[in-house]
Amino acid sequence: MNRREMMKLGAGAFATSLPLVAHAEHPFRDAAPDSGATADQGGDAVQGTIEQWGIFEVALAGPSEGNPFIQVTLSAEFRHQHRTVSVTGFYDGNGTYRIRFMPDATGDWSYVTTSSAGALHGKSGSFQCTSASTGNHGPVHVAHQFHFQYADGTPYFPFGTTTYSYLFMSEPYDLQTIASLKDSPFNKVRVCVLPKGQGKRGLPEFPFEHAAGSSSAHREELKDGHPSNATFDCDRLNPRYFQLLERRLLELQKAGIEADLILFHPYDSWGFKSMTPEQDDRYLRYAIARFAAYRNVWWAIANEYDLVKTKSLADWDRFFRITVASDPYSHLRSIHHSKVIYDHSKPWCTHASLQEYDFQKSAERRAAWNKPIVYDEIQYEGNIARRWGNLSAEEVTRRFWLATVHGVYASHGETYKTPPGEPVWSDGGKLRGISSPRIAFLRKLLERATQTGVNEFEDAYYPSAGKDKELYLYYFDFHCVGEYDFPLPAGVRFKATLIDPWNMTERELPGVFTGKSTGSRFVDENAGDQIQGGTNHIELTGKPYMAVLFQKV
Amino acid sequence: MNRREMMKLGAGAFATSLPLVAHAEHPFRDAAPDSGATADQGGDAVQGTIEQWGIFEVALAGPSEGNPFIQVTLSAEFRHQHRTVSVTGFYDGNGTYRIRFMPDATGDWSYVTTSSAGALHGKSGSFQCTSASTGNHGPVHVAHQFHFQYADGTPYFPFGTTTYSYLFMSEPYDLQTIASLKDSPFNKVRVCVLPKGQGKRGLPEFPFEHAAGSSSAHREELKDGHPSNATFDCDRLNPRYFQLLERRLLELQKAGIEADLILFHPYDSWGFKSMTPEQDDRYLRYAIARFAAYRNVWWAIANEYDLVKTKSLADWDRFFRITVASDPYSHLRSIHHSKVIYDHSKPWCTHASLQEYDFQKSAERRAAWNKPIVYDEIQYEGNIARRWGNLSAEEVTRRFWLATVHGVYASHGETYKTPPGEPVWSDGGKLRGISSPRIAFLRKLLERATQTGVNEFEDAYYPSAGKDKELYLYYFDFHCVGEYDFPLPAGVRFKATLIDPWNMTERELPGVFTGKSTGSRFVDENAGDQIQGGTNHIELTGKPYMAVLFQKV
Repeated sequence: MNRREMMKLGAGAFATSLPLVAHAEHPFRDAAPDSGATADQGGDAVQGTIEQWGIFEVALAGPSEGNPFIQVTLSAEFRHQHRTVSVTGFYDGNGTYRIRFMPDATGDWSYVTTSSAGALHGKSGSFQCTSASTGNHGPVHVAHQFHFQYADGTPYFPFGTTTYSYLFMSEPYDLQTIASLKDSPFNKVRVCVLPKGQGKRGLPEFPFEHAAGSSSAHREELKDGHPSNATFDCDRLNPRYFQLLERRLLELQKAGIEADLILFHPYDSWGFKSMTPEQDDRYLRYAIARFAAYRNVWWAIANEYDLVKTKSLADWDRFFRITVASDPYSHLRSIHHSKVIYDHSKPWCTHASLQEYDFQKSAERRAAWNKPIVYDEIQYEGNIARRWGNLSAEEVTRRFWLATVHGVYASHGETYKTPPGEPVWSDGGKLRGISSPRIAFLRKLLERATQTGVNEFEDAYYPSAGKDKELYLYYFDFHCVGEYDFPLPAGVRFKATLIDPWNMTERELPGVFTGKSTGSRFVDENAGDQIQGGTNHIELTGKPYMAVLFQKV
Repeated sequence: MNRREMMKLGAGAFATSLPLVAHAEHPFRDAAPDSGATADQGGDAVQGTIEQWGIFEVALAGPSEGNPFIQVTLSAEFRHQHRTVSVTGFYDGNGTYRIRFMPDATGDWSYVTTSSAGALHGKSGSFQCTSASTGNHGPVHVAHQFHFQYADGTPYFPFGTTTYSYLFMSEPYDLQTIASLKDSPFNKVRVCVLPKGQGKRGLPEFPFEHAAGSSSAHREELKDGHPSNATFDCDRLNPRYFQLLERRLLELQKAGIEADLILFHPYDSWGFKSMTPEQDDRYLRYAIARFAAYRNVWWAIANEYDLVKTKSLADWDRFFRITVASDPYSHLRSIHHSKVIYDHSKPWCTHASLQEYDFQKSAERRAAWNKPIVYDEIQYEGNIARRWGNLSAEEVTRRFWLATVHGVYASHGETYKTPPGEPVWSDGGKLRGISSPRIAFLRKLLERATQTGVNEFEDAYYPSAGKDKELYLYYFDFHCVGEYDFPLPAGVRFKATLIDPWNMTERELPGVFTGKSTGSRFVDENAGDQIQGGTNHIELTGKPYMAVLFQKV
């Protein structure tokens, strides 16, 4: 793949400034560099063009002796008008160093490097940042207090899924994963940066180099998919591993999917959860230096942090602080628990990522944390023996609706039993379940109904969310309501749509709907009274799991 | 109905000793008394025969002037061998006083009365208590710490329902209610003693006499089924009201149904919840004096006690103390809440009666209270607008199963919309729903499987209850389990039955089932290992809401 293809493929996401060093190992640089590339490693007047929220990359040749990961520092200051952004570079192996930058403003930018190595120091250049291309909305940030949107103001409502191993899993499962994702409603995916065991499928690469004493024959002895006695030199990162991950990050970006990057996790067979604090911090800074320029990256400091018994709460707080300090773009930051909920009110958490499905506690959590909440693990659709992995598609659909009317977001997962050797969806592979079309239905409905997200009506008699006097989305959950006098506000006219979330049908009701008072949202005792200009009474199906949407006309 | 018919009808429940005073007003005494009856009100040598846990009644003529409810005291001591039981009598109107007694031991009993009125004082007699007839198992008491049984040792597992107004509602709804109950699995019914509004259906009687100044014309002005300006003299109980209730108590007894008598409640249109403490206490003692000899009576001090804003916690505690002191038989005692759970660890509570459906908290509640728990209001099957009244039959069935595998009990209720003027089942009338056959299925299954009730396995991976090494009842709730290695104990052989609670099917699996260890009941990590003498692995349907029963062979 050449540079032109890369830029096209990445929808403007990835541009490589000159000078460019091409390596056979680099997954994007198998082919000869674009004819426009000149390997002018010593030049100062590097030029380029990159779209807003694309990746401008400076590649420099530098020292390869010793341990460049430890011994060489590299950074650059990027300048645009009055602003300066400091960006850390990284060693990409074979004597190549890179600095990646995601410009957030159009216009002229320049940069100059600083390094402990003379060959990398004082390099400068400039480029022009052009408008974002279609489909590039920039990174996602918190908006409207409890919601999200893209940097360009486009609404973004997370409807995530879980494919922990997608970034590092071997073929053909990576291709299956991205094909399923493209065919799904999911616009966020929870993916691990450090590897998880892949059974007999094995792993193409590891994030660290094998220790010097570890023979290659030794390395080939696979047990359960990983070298049985593998030892790693955790002071030496393996750039090929990270290049692999980046290729998949770009695939996600092309598909319009945010990558919720899980930086640490407890599912470790190789000792990566037992590195020294220095090694942890170096790995973390390295990952941020490599990945932060990808606009679709979120930082999930850990999955099930409280199951990582080798680390303390102080470690997790430190990782957050390092992330805040190292990421020039303030990508979203969260941490995910197993049993012990992290204090998401801490200032470095941009939102809460929960393993819960007690959505009725959302209001008190919002009050405590004042941030968006994503219920990132609400148990999985499937049929395995583990109790977190055998929800019906109906129950998953229900939980997504409950999340919505509690003003929060949910993430999907799936663990149907697979043929021997094949991964379950929550690792990657093929999506088998039937909740995802229902989630697509909900996502489309929400995106049609609001630009800013729906907030829970906390005192509502039935779960409902929206915006007062404009939008009311009711979800009746298990209640088989036969009729209901909706406590709509007086003086506002609404159209009403009956929604069947499972059968994915909508039926707009004839007439205009309005209410008697703007007071209590509890059930109205005076049913059936005449209301000026409409009614608040609706005959419902008496079936469970139905919804009603009121939109101001 | 004559006395012989009464005894037959009541299955030995009700006998009237001589002398007997017959009143046209008394529902059981419309016909002439039995030819054996002599109105020897002054005699001392009264004889009779009554079966164990039947009702022996002494009727005496006494003063009717003034206010007998306040001015006349009456009690009797019943003696059997070394024991003496003190029993309070009551004024039944028209100059008749009664003392009712439920003997709990066969053999010879004698009694002597004490009264402030000379005509009632010093009356004595004796009777023989014979063995209980078939179907008479005596009153229900707590047994096996968290369960119940009849006095004769017969197991009793409460599967209750709710028909608040059955005791006082007008025809034909009373007949509809009892007919539905007889056709149902319910062996306990929650019924109010003080009246609830009956809409246009009206009430046949009130528990207190109308105040002297209240004209009869005035009384006829009905609004919403009760006298619009009715005022009552709450110092004068109305015996006809209580006679009506007693007739229905006996109907329940004949049908094998325990009457969970709600003594106070907030659903009051007449001021009965705002009586003085003296009036409250007098009413309470009167109800106990009349009803305590009915073996199928339980005392529910209140329904939704915390909604009765006219009373304090000290009042409820006092009512409990009065009940303990006044009831010679220690019938079961509980109190039911709306939002604020009563402290059921108080010594006068025999069990907890809850308005909840968070069954997962049962273990901590058992630990706190050390008593049986009946979730007496788990919301109702139906389709009304109120959120407590529109569960699907599936959800009600699910909640009964959840209660069972959490080692507790549940009560049913139903609020399907009815034709105008007809009551909903939770008041009385016709049972319309389809959860009741499923509850019958569960009740039969439980009664076949255990004599002493099932206890929750609190650390179980999936909800389950039973008795260790003997009985394991699993309910998988919403989990669509495709296969599972059950953590059965080693060295014990079980038969296994797959149960579909909704379709009411059972299928015994071929083979013998046993486990590998007696250790953790959490999911076994070493699935598929060979186990000596059987297997712990079962392929399940992958459908939700399934159950599996293991019984020692």
